Amino acid sequence: MKKVAVIGGGSGIFPVTSALKHLPVAISTIITVSDSGGSTGRIRDEFGFQPIGDLRQSLAALAEDETQEWIRKLLLYRFDRGTELKGHNLGNLILTALQDMTGDTDEALQKAASIFRIEGDVIPATKENVDLKVVYEDGSVIVGEDHLDAETSNPKKIDHIELVPEATLNPRAQTAIEAADFIIIGPGDFYASILPALAPRGTREAFANTKAEIIYIMNLMTRHTQTRDMSASDHVAEIEEFIGTPVSSIIMNNQTIPGETLDRYGKYHEHPVIDDISDDARLLRAPLLSDITYTQSENDSAHRSMLRHDSQKLIAILEAIIK
Amino acid sequence: MKKVAVIGGGSGIFPVTSALKHLPVAISTIITVSDSGGSTGRIRDEFGFQPIGDLRQSLAALAEDETQEWIRKLLLYRFDRGTELKGHNLGNLILTALQDMTGDTDEALQKAASIFRIEGDVIPATKENVDLKVVYEDGSVIVGEDHLDAETSNPKKIDHIELVPEATLNPRAQTAIEAADFIIIGPGDFYASILPALAPRGTREAFANTKAEIIYIMNLMTRHTQTRDMSASDHVAEIEEFIGTPVSSIIMNNQTIPGETLDRYGKYHEHPVIDDISDDARLLRAPLLSDITYTQSENDSAHRSMLRHDSQKLIAILEAIIK
Repeated sequence: MKKVAVIGGGSGIFPVTSALKHLPVAISTIITVSDSGGSTGRIRDEFGFQPIGDLRQSLAALAEDETQEWIRKLLLYRFDRGTELKGHNLGNLILTALQDMTGDTDEALQKAASIFRIEGDVIPATKENVDLKVVYEDGSVIVGEDHLDAETSNPKKIDHIELVPEATLNPRAQTAIEAADFIIIGPGDFYASILPALAPRGTREAFANTKAEIIYIMNLMTRHTQTRDMSASDHVAEIEEFIGTPVSSIIMNNQTIPGETLDRYGKYHEHPVIDDISDDARLLRAPLLSDITYTQSENDSAHRSMLRHDSQKLIAILEAIIK
Repeated sequence: MKKVAVIGGGSGIFPVTSALKHLPVAISTIITVSDSGGSTGRIRDEFGFQPIGDLRQSLAALAEDETQEWIRKLLLYRFDRGTELKGHNLGNLILTALQDMTGDTDEALQKAASIFRIEGDVIPATKENVDLKVVYEDGSVIVGEDHLDAETSNPKKIDHIELVPEATLNPRAQTAIEAADFIIIGPGDFYASILPALAPRGTREAFANTKAEIIYIMNLMTRHTQTRDMSASDHVAEIEEFIGTPVSSIIMNNQTIPGETLDRYGKYHEHPVIDDISDDARLLRAPLLSDITYTQSENDSAHRSMLRHDSQKLIAILEAIIK
């Protein structure tokens, strides 16, 4: 069975993981752990464990089987009432309890996988308790992922991101990268999820040691506070700088986005990622839009994308590559 | 396979259910749902669903298998930190989410059993959202289980209890009683758990229709606010009045309780239940004390018993009856 490692944040890679569940592959997801907003942030502040929001979503994505429908529902359930509970995700509370009982996020995830009969690994990119540090081109700095979207009227351009404190790649993530036949990066929040998942020290070395084909799934839209004015090739260049090696394939949507949706995004100064890599043989285009209308899934300050990749449509293109 | 129905409250019947898991029997637990204190009460006030604390404990008791150790731990986990979460039981939050998603406590319990691979049924005694009403001998009345232990210096004597509003036996509980080969009642809080579980309208009729042998497990100690000065035969008489038929066996501890423990209980005016039924052929005596020291398991106002029946010791005596 081919081994596939998926790297990114919980909600971005959700449709990718769901798609892979329909292929005969062994899945590992390597997940960013620098989230600090919403239910996750509230729990993180109180308990001091690694943030679990993205990990919970990845676990739920792996519970794709029809018999596991209720397990997925349970992990994704969010309390909409109760002065104390409102906004909390049940899956976050379950993982927090397991972190507390086991004393270790990795072990908590393995217990959760066994309790809920989830096949596939969810691996925090680092075992350290890190925050996202964003350095802007003007030299200013913010620490904490939840501050990233604070300035929306005229956001500064990001120079680069780091993790603080500096963190090392989780050995289980290293093994997953090195043993993989295919590595899929993205889609998802570029500076808040994708690059932080690739930022731990040791990631470049792991990529140097792997024989895996590296597939990058391009975001559908830019994000005003993060990737404003970034073209497709800008995205690829940043990824390749982080992993230290060229990607093997680039998957990009070519389905027309409805004008109404473009208008809604336009209000937030967000636009489709410009395809400026048309003569690159690595580029694979396909209609990839989901018909489902998404709304904000977390009670946090982040503006959440309503336009998503469609898991069913991803199956076909991934199947063509991974065989 | 023999069918056994166990009736009572979550913590009282915990060791009984744990013991039965070691016998080749099909277990149904019929559980009181008039709890109103602690984590359960906080959730009940906010969400308006049936209280789930006792149901959660019964589910956990059915997850006795060694492979289910972590499921039991998860269902019993209690947050000891977090301004919002402190005192909440994770199992309560899981059942609340399932109540919300299914709209029905019975269905929530069946989903939970399937998610956590729990064999055996946990059945709320009634499907109605009820409170405990306690009528004292002086005619005064309290409503709400959490008020029962409020007056501890000189508690009044209880005349009887009712459920408000008046409630009907859950049809699934009726079926379980009528189909049972053995029915075990207790142990547990007499007026807060055992009798409320037997109080729904239709319970007497179900007992009239069953061919089951009825086993009553006597409490170890009296409880100052509930069963002060009640002897063993007083307990049995009350039970028989509720079910409308004689019990077949009475299981009673004959193991000496350490003086230190008696002293501790004595401070709360609580003493071993006096054995005044020595010439009754139905009486089975055995050493039944647990060596484990229990502490308060819920963050509520109730004074919780430290002395419990031992699940291992119950196996032998139950095995001798149920064969």
